[in-house]
Amino acid sequence: MNESRSVLEQTVGRIRALDEGAMRDAEHRLDRLTKPPGSLGRLEEIARQAAGVTGLLNPDLSRKAVVVMAGDHGVCAEGVSAFPAEVTPQMVLNFLNGGAAVNVLSRHVGADVVCVDIGVNADLSHPDLVVRKVKYGTANMASGPAMTREEAVRAVEAGIEIVEGLAGDGYRMFATGEMGIGNTTPSAALVVALTGADVETAVGRGTGIGDEALRRKRDVVRRALEANRPDAGDPIDALAKVGGLEIAGLVGVILGAAANRCPVVVDGFISSAAALVASRIAPLSKGYMVPSHLSHEQGHRLLLEHIGLKPILQMDMRLGEGTGAVMAFPIVEAAVKLMNEMATFESAGVSEN
Amino acid sequence: MNESRSVLEQTVGRIRALDEGAMRDAEHRLDRLTKPPGSLGRLEEIARQAAGVTGLLNPDLSRKAVVVMAGDHGVCAEGVSAFPAEVTPQMVLNFLNGGAAVNVLSRHVGADVVCVDIGVNADLSHPDLVVRKVKYGTANMASGPAMTREEAVRAVEAGIEIVEGLAGDGYRMFATGEMGIGNTTPSAALVVALTGADVETAVGRGTGIGDEALRRKRDVVRRALEANRPDAGDPIDALAKVGGLEIAGLVGVILGAAANRCPVVVDGFISSAAALVASRIAPLSKGYMVPSHLSHEQGHRLLLEHIGLKPILQMDMRLGEGTGAVMAFPIVEAAVKLMNEMATFESAGVSEN
Repeated sequence: MNESRSVLEQTVGRIRALDEGAMRDAEHRLDRLTKPPGSLGRLEEIARQAAGVTGLLNPDLSRKAVVVMAGDHGVCAEGVSAFPAEVTPQMVLNFLNGGAAVNVLSRHVGADVVCVDIGVNADLSHPDLVVRKVKYGTANMASGPAMTREEAVRAVEAGIEIVEGLAGDGYRMFATGEMGIGNTTPSAALVVALTGADVETAVGRGTGIGDEALRRKRDVVRRALEANRPDAGDPIDALAKVGGLEIAGLVGVILGAAANRCPVVVDGFISSAAALVASRIAPLSKGYMVPSHLSHEQGHRLLLEHIGLKPILQMDMRLGEGTGAVMAFPIVEAAVKLMNEMATFESAGVSEN
Repeated sequence: MNESRSVLEQTVGRIRALDEGAMRDAEHRLDRLTKPPGSLGRLEEIARQAAGVTGLLNPDLSRKAVVVMAGDHGVCAEGVSAFPAEVTPQMVLNFLNGGAAVNVLSRHVGADVVCVDIGVNADLSHPDLVVRKVKYGTANMASGPAMTREEAVRAVEAGIEIVEGLAGDGYRMFATGEMGIGNTTPSAALVVALTGADVETAVGRGTGIGDEALRRKRDVVRRALEANRPDAGDPIDALAKVGGLEIAGLVGVILGAAANRCPVVVDGFISSAAALVASRIAPLSKGYMVPSHLSHEQGHRLLLEHIGLKPILQMDMRLGEGTGAVMAFPIVEAAVKLMNEMATFESAGVSEN
């Protein structure tokens, strides 16, 4: 009998509840600052959460990375995306050359982009590319499982190990990013499989398909669920059967961040599908997730509500890559700075109500 | 007959429509970038607006200031606020000493805080304080006009002149901020006077009053409107009779920014009341306004809809000072950078749909 635990099991075992003492200290401090109690709204919640996540009232979160997981999808053969699958490797090279939206935004906020080939259907080579390819894209879930269970676990563990490495290098805050033509389709399938949402609600237009493609995409999700019968009580089963390699990688990023007591900012629809899976594998990981934006993708609101994440940005974005999450990095840093740099009523000589 | 035009009239006369050619060029450029068309949502709108405002595709908006106008309110005698009026001058000193929320956030985003005494009911002195005091607080609008028309115009012109000076010093983006215990009351009165909204909708809890104080505050607004009968077709009349000195100063900041072709980020409820007045004085000034957050204050949503501003941050903030607006500065800068730094489909060799 093999008693050794997998990387995934060990990581889940390391995820703790948020530090209650640090959160109480944070509340106490926030209420002494020169402002009406609670008047900084969500910024106060985030400051409190950052204390609970790190155990520190003044954590240094300035070293931060968006982990962009890239993978391809066999389901693209069904015509579910507005873009051809060849765009996935093309965009990976764009990330590596610094020309994509996530690169511009990351430079703007002082974050690094870590680009991972976890399942691109092409051989890619670049000095900055992290190659953790599990396979050359998923199989077409419309007719069978996207991955084996073992492949899904390997992809999750790749995400964990990448975050472990980055945490070891001093990174203290993470964001989830992804690239994978077709990946709103498995994301929607996961939402339906794990929450029981109906297909009409969960499946939207992705990067911009028309009415006919949308009907096809909904039909594909129905067929995938019919063909695979994912187990709603077994998140890895659902992830393997109707998920994606980059989604699995992001599940690992989230679990790895939580195990390392780092906040992880969750991007849009695909990242939130990963967050849903992570929250089912390790419910305590929810405490480490920071919401970012409400995407334009129609199923995102329902999905966020299901996880219990309330978005702070409403930008009508629907690009992915981690672009919305990166925009939230400075908000998290602002929250921590407010708690630590504002004057108190006593120090400033301001009257209280 | 005096043919010289006032500073206010001259400034309004200088405000032009946004540059259509620059906005078309911006749209063309945005559609060539490596992303699905429109997928950056509001960021694309803001990039386009910044081009229209400045006439440039790549304006340098890095030099930026939040102008915090401080004034007192005679209506505080009616018990409309959770805090005593003495907090206004105390908080002004807190701004000048760098200890308030707006200071922390401004340092975080690389903006300067310009603090103006436009009507504080105390004598304040500090090397960094801009003193443009029109009077020692407004009169109690519950029984008569808060200001004379001439005082209101003087306060607006002070705001204009401060922005003119800052623009001369190289500042290229502005945010509105304010401090004035009691100032959600005149702001709500302005909303009712100029939009016909009902008092129940427009008047909220401000920094956090209870049910009894809220009833009193609503009654005060009704009495103020009854006693003063502001002219809905004459925004300066309404501003003088039921407004505030810092609100008038912010009207000037907005008009001055528009005249200087600079974007001006509008903060929460009080700032939005100033934006409403500015939009009535000079409808073209609307094009220069950038929305920031949806405040916790109940009347804010209606007010923003009325002006036509769609908030991008949902932080449940209700502090004022310009804190929400300052949080939006990096978003505006990000939008401009995306338009200028992203690769195009051609340059990156990415296939289009």
